[in-house]
Amino acid sequence: MKNVEIITIGTEVLIGQVIDTNSAWLGEKLQIAGLNINRKTSIVDTPELIISTLQKAFEENDIIITTGGLGLTKDDITKNSIAKWLNKNLVYHEPSVEHLHSFYKKRNREVNELVLKMALIVEGSEGFVNPVGASPGMMIPLPNNKYLFCFPGVPNEMKALFETYVFDKLKKLSERHTEHFHLYLTGITESQATALLSDFENSLPDYISIAYLPSYKLLRMRLDLNVNNENQEAIQFFKTKCQEMADLLKDYIISYDQETLEQVVSRLLKEKNKTLAIAESCTGGNLVGSLVKISGISQVLKGGIVAYSNQIKTQLLKVSEKILSNHGAVSEPCALEMAKEIRKLFQSDIAISTTGIAGPDGGSEQKPVGTVCIALVTQNFEFVKTYQLGNNPREIFIDRVIAIALENLRRLLLGIQLQKN
Amino acid sequence: MKNVEIITIGTEVLIGQVIDTNSAWLGEKLQIAGLNINRKTSIVDTPELIISTLQKAFEENDIIITTGGLGLTKDDITKNSIAKWLNKNLVYHEPSVEHLHSFYKKRNREVNELVLKMALIVEGSEGFVNPVGASPGMMIPLPNNKYLFCFPGVPNEMKALFETYVFDKLKKLSERHTEHFHLYLTGITESQATALLSDFENSLPDYISIAYLPSYKLLRMRLDLNVNNENQEAIQFFKTKCQEMADLLKDYIISYDQETLEQVVSRLLKEKNKTLAIAESCTGGNLVGSLVKISGISQVLKGGIVAYSNQIKTQLLKVSEKILSNHGAVSEPCALEMAKEIRKLFQSDIAISTTGIAGPDGGSEQKPVGTVCIALVTQNFEFVKTYQLGNNPREIFIDRVIAIALENLRRLLLGIQLQKN
Repeated sequence: MKNVEIITIGTEVLIGQVIDTNSAWLGEKLQIAGLNINRKTSIVDTPELIISTLQKAFEENDIIITTGGLGLTKDDITKNSIAKWLNKNLVYHEPSVEHLHSFYKKRNREVNELVLKMALIVEGSEGFVNPVGASPGMMIPLPNNKYLFCFPGVPNEMKALFETYVFDKLKKLSERHTEHFHLYLTGITESQATALLSDFENSLPDYISIAYLPSYKLLRMRLDLNVNNENQEAIQFFKTKCQEMADLLKDYIISYDQETLEQVVSRLLKEKNKTLAIAESCTGGNLVGSLVKISGISQVLKGGIVAYSNQIKTQLLKVSEKILSNHGAVSEPCALEMAKEIRKLFQSDIAISTTGIAGPDGGSEQKPVGTVCIALVTQNFEFVKTYQLGNNPREIFIDRVIAIALENLRRLLLGIQLQKN
Repeated sequence: MKNVEIITIGTEVLIGQVIDTNSAWLGEKLQIAGLNINRKTSIVDTPELIISTLQKAFEENDIIITTGGLGLTKDDITKNSIAKWLNKNLVYHEPSVEHLHSFYKKRNREVNELVLKMALIVEGSEGFVNPVGASPGMMIPLPNNKYLFCFPGVPNEMKALFETYVFDKLKKLSERHTEHFHLYLTGITESQATALLSDFENSLPDYISIAYLPSYKLLRMRLDLNVNNENQEAIQFFKTKCQEMADLLKDYIISYDQETLEQVVSRLLKEKNKTLAIAESCTGGNLVGSLVKISGISQVLKGGIVAYSNQIKTQLLKVSEKILSNHGAVSEPCALEMAKEIRKLFQSDIAISTTGIAGPDGGSEQKPVGTVCIALVTQNFEFVKTYQLGNNPREIFIDRVIAIALENLRRLLLGIQLQKN
């Protein structure tokens, strides 16, 4: 397999000014292209360090990717350093010169000599017009069939250039045949999945590997095939293994198409033509807010009430004083009343409610921090359940409650039994 | 100044399984400690690569920090590689052995030989008991008064170990005197601040520097003093410069104490004993949701209504059909009605409303994507204003609306004029 090194140029990443999200994104794409990433280096922008880092990367790798340092401030010295390293000149990339003129005109800004410097590329390289920004990207051939690719540091510019021009080139350069099987799961942790797949993982040949990409809401998994060439026997075997993995994980799979929980639920609501309303206490608007981030949700989402104070629970959501005094606001009867009332109030087909103790204060022995009651109701169905999520930072607690509520909504829409714990 | 290199060990970061938030956090802390970060390297976990990377880092730097590879799986080879590099043995760190027993007992899990391996540290090093996890951290003296610090890769464990044991040691090792002046700002972009501070920045001696740490909600800025020793003249001059910078930016400063906008608003509501209710359309629960993430907000936040559909706007928030047909849901009259009605309904002192076009669809020539109307009302005050935020991804649009709404609330609470654009 061919080796790649990613080099991030600029102080911002080193001193914590920005979090380097580019490298993680690139890392995943490079792996999918069939390349091997051995090292990622972030350096400050001095010519000496850029040149020595490029030289070392060239000696040990087949492909080098740099991000950063292609803009117009005095810190942007990536191109000059590369030209010095390779003993080449910088030349204007005419399509990018034209692009800069129209790009600046649209924004009513003047193109001066400083701006035009952005259109310079290393002599002998292939320039790529930036689809969403000003600075072009570059592909520079190096000795021994090696290549250097350069991108701006701004994430959306790097991503647009990579996807428009570079991914297919890298897939070809890798000279590998790769296939990928994506699974998105809920209700299972990374370590539970690792344990469940232990025998399966041991049965894999070295050209098939598993990747785990966990978050608080979702476990993304990928089975990767990476072989020398289009070997039909290996491809067939990979298909068998994909099926085997899907069978082992079948109780937890929510999507084979890289859909998030929010996207799956939004799609199912539309497919089944059902409307939704949400009454939130502990999640405080973040449950409905997570759905609002999905474009087109307005067709099925009527809205919600954030009943953070008990006053709103009794007045607007008609939770009886008796329930509050006998059971408390964090109780299954309260959650059920909240869901039933908001369904009536908003005239929706389905309603969800959440009430819990996010912490750090407010817990008791009976109801420790991390206790949450979640209810889901329709015209002829009622479900309510108490979950214990343990002591977490508020944001993680909220994310986990959202994940359980949406997973139960997904199951309700599919007619599957809801989560018992 | 002393040089540091951060080395991240493990494939997770390289193949995009996790985003490396540790390095950005460490980068900021190291700068505050008065150290100079030249390079950050992420490598896969092979002993050869770990050893060659450590050797190079040792040759070029004074302090090395590693994260990752201290757990109990077969991939966790950081300690063994370091021992091999330094030709030393691994020995049990007795306080961590004890800690592991109590840590596992609390979780009803057995301590076996494999688990105990986590308590091994490099001979001659200082071990640090992990305050929130299992694996200890280490400080290993190297030749020529250099040091190697090792942390687990899990962010909250790395941070707890760093703050409990290591930050003060590094501050001492840096042999520099550092001071820091923090400003949190809203209503100004990084490039606007750069332009505003251009002369100021040019007037700074090389021992004083500015750091910009932007996000969509907030611009964090820091002025740093970094001198050889406690030089009273430099400290006095730094104080003058802090005052000068604060004066230049005074219209935008929301906090000198590293408080976020949500924290400032939450504190002010409590101080002024005012309650809040929020009616949201385009932000869909994310405005109230951003406040709910602040612990203790329940004292002042009554809750909100997410009126995503027009039906809810008319029925629950009493927006007249006439306003909707004459002006539309994204209009100042609609925003004003929403805010007035939720204040009545929730019996709050203050109410905020948002209604806008998040996109990508739903825009028109008159009301393009990115148009938002925000209203704030009290018993005897009404404010409503339309803002044009341009075409952004939904999440960025939502964050920017939240920032404007909360900034206006802050100004209202302080009796300052609200934002005109």
